[in-house]
Formats: sequence, structure tokens, C-alpha cells
Amino acid sequence: MSARAGIIVTGTEVLTGRVTDRNGPWLAEQLRLLGVDVGHVVVVGDRPEDLQGALAFLAGTDVSLVITSGGLGPTADDLTAQTVGDCQGRPSAVDPALEQRIATIVDRLTARRGWRADPAALAAGVRKQARVPEGATVLEPIGTAPGLVVPPAEGRDGPAVLVLPGPPSELQGMWPSAVAAPLTQAALAGAAEVRQQTVRLWGTLEAQLAATLREHDDELAGLEITTCLRDGELEIVTRFPPSAQAAQDRLSALLAEEYADTLFSTGPTLDDLVAGGFADRGLTVATAESCTGGLLAARLTERPGSSAWVLGGVVAYANAAKEQLLDVPPTVLAEQGAVSPEVAVALADGARARFGADIGVGITGVAGPGGGTPDKPVGTVHLCVAGPDGRQLRALRLPGSRTAVRERSVTMAMHLLRASLVGGPPA
Amino acid sequence: MSARAGIIVTGTEVLTGRVTDRNGPWLAEQLRLLGVDVGHVVVVGDRPEDLQGALAFLAGTDVSLVITSGGLGPTADDLTAQTVGDCQGRPSAVDPALEQRIATIVDRLTARRGWRADPAALAAGVRKQARVPEGATVLEPIGTAPGLVVPPAEGRDGPAVLVLPGPPSELQGMWPSAVAAPLTQAALAGAAEVRQQTVRLWGTLEAQLAATLREHDDELAGLEITTCLRDGELEIVTRFPPSAQAAQDRLSALLAEEYADTLFSTGPTLDDLVAGGFADRGLTVATAESCTGGLLAARLTERPGSSAWVLGGVVAYANAAKEQLLDVPPTVLAEQGAVSPEVAVALADGARARFGADIGVGITGVAGPGGGTPDKPVGTVHLCVAGPDGRQLRALRLPGSRTAVRERSVTMAMHLLRASLVGGPPA
Repeated sequence: MSARAGIIVTGTEVLTGRVTDRNGPWLAEQLRLLGVDVGHVVVVGDRPEDLQGALAFLAGTDVSLVITSGGLGPTADDLTAQTVGDCQGRPSAVDPALEQRIATIVDRLTARRGWRADPAALAAGVRKQARVPEGATVLEPIGTAPGLVVPPAEGRDGPAVLVLPGPPSELQGMWPSAVAAPLTQAALAGAAEVRQQTVRLWGTLEAQLAATLREHDDELAGLEITTCLRDGELEIVTRFPPSAQAAQDRLSALLAEEYADTLFSTGPTLDDLVAGGFADRGLTVATAESCTGGLLAARLTERPGSSAWVLGGVVAYANAAKEQLLDVPPTVLAEQGAVSPEVAVALADGARARFGADIGVGITGVAGPGGGTPDKPVGTVHLCVAGPDGRQLRALRLPGSRTAVRERSVTMAMHLLRASLVGGPPA
Repeated sequence: MSARAGIIVTGTEVLTGRVTDRNGPWLAEQLRLLGVDVGHVVVVGDRPEDLQGALAFLAGTDVSLVITSGGLGPTADDLTAQTVGDCQGRPSAVDPALEQRIATIVDRLTARRGWRADPAALAAGVRKQARVPEGATVLEPIGTAPGLVVPPAEGRDGPAVLVLPGPPSELQGMWPSAVAAPLTQAALAGAAEVRQQTVRLWGTLEAQLAATLREHDDELAGLEITTCLRDGELEIVTRFPPSAQAAQDRLSALLAEEYADTLFSTGPTLDDLVAGGFADRGLTVATAESCTGGLLAARLTERPGSSAWVLGGVVAYANAAKEQLLDVPPTVLAEQGAVSPEVAVALADGARARFGADIGVGITGVAGPGGGTPDKPVGTVHLCVAGPDGRQLRALRLPGSRTAVRERSVTMAMHLLRASLVGGPPA
């Protein structure tokens, strides 16, 4: 038997898709690591009766903890704390010490930003954020909003409610103290160990994998296997109790045998592998991007510490930029066209030479929606990785939108880097 | 009075965040255009009892229609149609004519892709997809799965359930016939026109705006106002019936008066304004990025047609790259340090000169988590936009993670571009 939790994400902007929810999936993953199952993530707008409805619904399922995110701001439409208190039968009141602590934070913030701020308006906002349901545990603010753990009123049954702020950095920063709170610990007392293993394939059809799994169905009992095809990568996630470890070992062996040509990771992400490869081998990289417009450089530099191996890059949209900043020969551009294997090579070589990097990456293509020709339709992309061991070239014809073509091109470049740096199956 | 609907998105891969849900927000927006309010989007995994729970929950709210997406595939874990039929009190049976139509589609698909396919397995999948709850309306497949509109059983109250496939292209392709179905029309009979207006401020605190709205509360009756602070921008979305248009006009005037110094848009996004500014004025741009590592170039080139104004950019992580590709004087780097206003100016000038662009943008800073000093802590960022009308400089000290510092820096650069191109309040 294991503990279960439910998640409520609040905010009309999330409900209508103006903002993509990052908190629901993040919380579900953190709970999984604690051995807690999540059955429902409910997204609600800013109407208090909709939040009440969602709280009542989840309280009526088999969960011992409900987590809310959002609705803790200083404005009148931020009603989560009050609503949760009411639903748990615990009236709210201002906590004067907390009010003082929040006021100090807000003063510091407004002073630093130099924004116009009416003191009375600020004070009203602070006072609102300092209201705490009776008997709730306060979690200290990361931004300006405190979190709360609100148990049901004395003598009432039902789950505890953990109230967290909406901005992902605040929610994630508050998570350790939220989990450590005794009320949370009590709510999650039934959690049982759940193990998880991930295997990543690059270039296998989901249907093919499904056939393999069906064939070996009887050896894999006790494993919950989900497969997900994303950005060309087939991710196989297995969850299992410790008692099913032998079945998991059988699955690992099976995948390693049957998919040796596409299995590139038994855990780390593609980006982990590439970063680790640069760090371990002490090599540097520079990029030369046309259609991907800086996305590869942005992806490489997203990782803390990447300045140790990323020297830089050029985004060469215009042909003149390709010639002047990357030494692509004008004759090659004129004869082969900007979207050609020859230009991909010249871009990679140019980036390598101009930045003095060990490895250069060149990408050129037609991301669309305009610019396609019968010869070189939208989705045509040429990539080259040039390094001390020579060059690797790929020609792609990608389906999908401008965004899809750009992202898939970058992923393919990352696989070319991964294959040159740490080996594994070819990209 | 207006119609309301609820949405259920199924799939463990969505619940755990391995796939980002696109159907919930898309459906909410389509319903809004029809004048239908959405109070809840519930994400459930593949356990049938969790789907049953979500259906029962939404049926108990004030909705006249529930829409489900996903779980209509040919495999045994795709249980939505069966579960919805059971919950509505309508047992399912195979529809032989539908079975024949699906079989034809599947034959054509497998022939075209040349996949290995076991006929018995295919036939079982087709038969499963052709099961229809008694009295339900069938919506013809876009892929292989039919949609359904399932009313409650005769003599029972409750919402109709519209069952749609999970792949966004199939769901969106089926939407017109789903809306046209008489059972859907009946469920949405109460729908009334809802208007929407968006205003965007840059540099106003949410608490400040809340005070303004409170002060004028009585003039704004009938407006549903939601505010969302995202990436430094305060987005104010108003929804209202046509009868409240006068109140909306009053709000628009009020915001224009009181927030003239921060109101930069009454509709278009920041990226719309910047792209429109380049196109209208026939100017070109080049970027020189250090800490943002290509994110600004990637954001500018994300837009179709941006090659008309983006010439390119340099990601200059290493100091040598700043000197050699952007002509940043070594003395300035040595004396002021790479993170300084002087280097931001040199980067912008260098990008402008090297690419021959009308406008150059320079960004240098400490994104963290390492690299901070007492003088220049993590979050210190200098930006410069240099153009025909001179230079604009900004010095920032941003809170938050590496990702947050990078993204906020890019947004500030976009505001500097917006202010130079189309005016409005200063960035």
C-alpha cells in the first residue's frame, strides 16, 4: 500500500493556456521520488467556487495530501489560502510577526527595482499575504508569499492541504521545507519505495518496441512500463516495487540486446551526456547556426558551468554574415546554395577556426513556413560536426512546423555531438 | 447566464509531465470563442478509476458538457470510450459499419508506411475502436479513432460527454463536426457572447494595480479581471458580456491615464510589437550575446519571416571571441571586466558594424550559479541597444536561477528594442 496525493494548479492564465503549467508535472515527479502516487492534476481558474469544488473532489478520493500551487499573491483575486482554510474548517487571521517579515521583504524588493509604489497599497497586499488559517504551519517565503500546511479541523477526516506559491522558482525553493514539515510527513506516512528506471532509444518506432514487450510479457510481470516518443527519442520509463527488480533486470538485458543500434542511455538525458563528454575530455566547442538561429548555442549554454567548454557561436542568417564571420566561400554559396552539405561543412569549419575550438558545429536549412523550393522543401536541413577525429555529416528532411524543424535540428546536432564525444550508437 | 464545460485530459505521460498538454488550453480557448466558460481541466493517468472519479466530479459541477481527450487508441490500456459509456449508463457494443470504415483506414495506413503488421492483432484493435455506447453520436475518424458524443442515459440528468482523440491534429480536425453535432449544440444552448480584452504593463507592481482596481470597483461592475505577472510583465485580461462594454471602456481609459508610464500594449504581445516594428520601419538587427548564449537570437528568429530583419548574431562566451568577432577592445575587457556597461556598448557596436545592421544589441552578465563576485554578483546584467538614433543602456540586478536571469535579460532586451522601434513607455 502506498500514499497517494492530488494536485491543484490555480490560475485563469494556466487554464486558458496563456501560461504553460510547469508546477503540476514538477510536483508529480517530486512526489514519485518520495514514493507517492498522483492520480489527478486539476487546473482551476480564479473563481473561488471552482477551487472549492476541486478541493472537495480530491478530498473525496483516496489521497492523504492535496497540494495547491498559485493564488497567493497580494491581489484580491488571489484566494487560495483563504479558500483552503475555509474548506478545512480553519478560519484565517493575520499573523502579525509574519506580516512584519513580509513587509521587510517587500520593502527591499521595491527599493531595489525603483518602482513607484503606494505605501497603503503595499501594506494592504502584505496584510493579505500574512493571513494564516488557524493551526496551519507557515512555510517561510521565497518570494513574498508564505506557503502553508493546513490540516483538517480537529475531529474532521480528510487530507492535509499543502499550499505553495505559483512561480516555479518559489515553489521549488519552498519544496524542501514543505516536505520536512511534520504535518506533511504525517500525511505521507504510507509512502512505499517505488523504483524507476529510464532507457532512451534514438531511432526506434514505438510499434516495434510494443511488439518486443508483448513477446516477453510473462517475464516482465510487476513492471509498470510507459513509453513516450518525444522529439524523435523513445523514452521507456519503468516503475516497480523492489520485489520486481529481477523483472527489471531482465527488461534491461532485453533492451540492450535487441536495441543495441539505438539505445544511447540507461538514465542520463542527451544533454547530460553531451555536457559530461565535454567536461571529461576537456574539449571546447563553437557553433555556426543558420535556420536554428541560436537555439543550439542557447541549449548548450543553458547548463551551469558550460562556459568551460562553450567558446561561443555565430548566428549567420544573412549570406554576408556566413562569408564575413565564418569564411564560407562565396563560390560555394553561389554554386551549392546556402542550404547544402558543403555550406554545413564550411560553417562547422569556420566556427572551429574563428573561435579556436576543438569542435565546430554547422547547421543550415529551411525552417519554413516560407523559403522552400521543389529541390529543397521546408524541412531540409544539413548538419556537420567537425572535430579532431574528422567530420560527421547528416542530411535531414524533417516534417512539421517551423518550431518543430528548428528543435529537431538542434536535437540531431546534440546527438552528433554525443556520438563524437562519448560514443554509443550513431546519431 | 452562460454555458459551462469541463475538460478531462487523459494519459500518464501528460500527468507526469513527459508530454506537455496542448489539448486542454486549445479546447478552453475554442470554448471561450463559443461563449462557453471552463472551470476545470483535470489531468488523469491511465487508471480507469481515476477517469471515473474525474467524470463524476465534473458531472457534479454546473457544467452542461464534459470533453475528454485521449485514450481512444487500439490497445487495451485505452479505456476512455468504454469508461464514459459506463458512467453515462450506456453499455457499449461494436458498430459493424464503423468497424468496416476503420478497417479500411487502417489497411491504407499500414500499406503506405510499409510496417510489419500482424492481421489478427490489427483486427482486434479495429474492433475495439469500433465499440460505441448505445445512443451515442459517432464522429468520423481523422486518424483511426472515432470521436463520440455520449448523452446521459434516458431519464438521467447530467452533462453530455464529448469524447475526442488525444493527438492534437486529430482532436483539432474533429472539432468542427464535434461542435456541429446536435447533442453538442443542445448541451451548449445557454452559451452567450463573451468578449475579451488584454492590456500589458511593464514595470508596475501587481499590488499597485490591485489598489487602482479596488478604488474604482463600483465603475467596473460586470468585468471579470484577471492579472498575471509573468517574466516581469503584468498582463491584465478582462472578460465581459457585451452589456458591460461601457465598464470595459472605463477600465481602458483608467489604465491609459494611470499607467501611461508602463502600459506598452492594448493587445499585441511584446514579440508581435518588435516584429511589427522591424517590418514597418524596414530596419535590420544583429545581436551580440554573452550570458544569454543565443537566447535572444533564437527568440527573434522564432518568428516566420524574421530573416527579413535578423541578419545574425554572435554568441561570445570567451573573451577572445568578444575581441576577435566583435572588436571589443582588449583594454576595455581588462580595465572594466567582461561584465560592464562599456563592454555591453562595445558588443552592440560590434554586432552592428560586423553584420552591417541598423541596430545592434549587446548583452553581458553573470547568469550564475557560479561566477559572481561581491562587486558583480550573480544576476548582474548590462544591456545596450545601439541604433541610428543613438544608444540605450540598462544595468540590471536580477534575482532567481540561471534560467530566470537569462530569460529576464532577453525580455529586457526585447523591451529596449520595442521602445526604440515603436515607442511607448521606456523599457
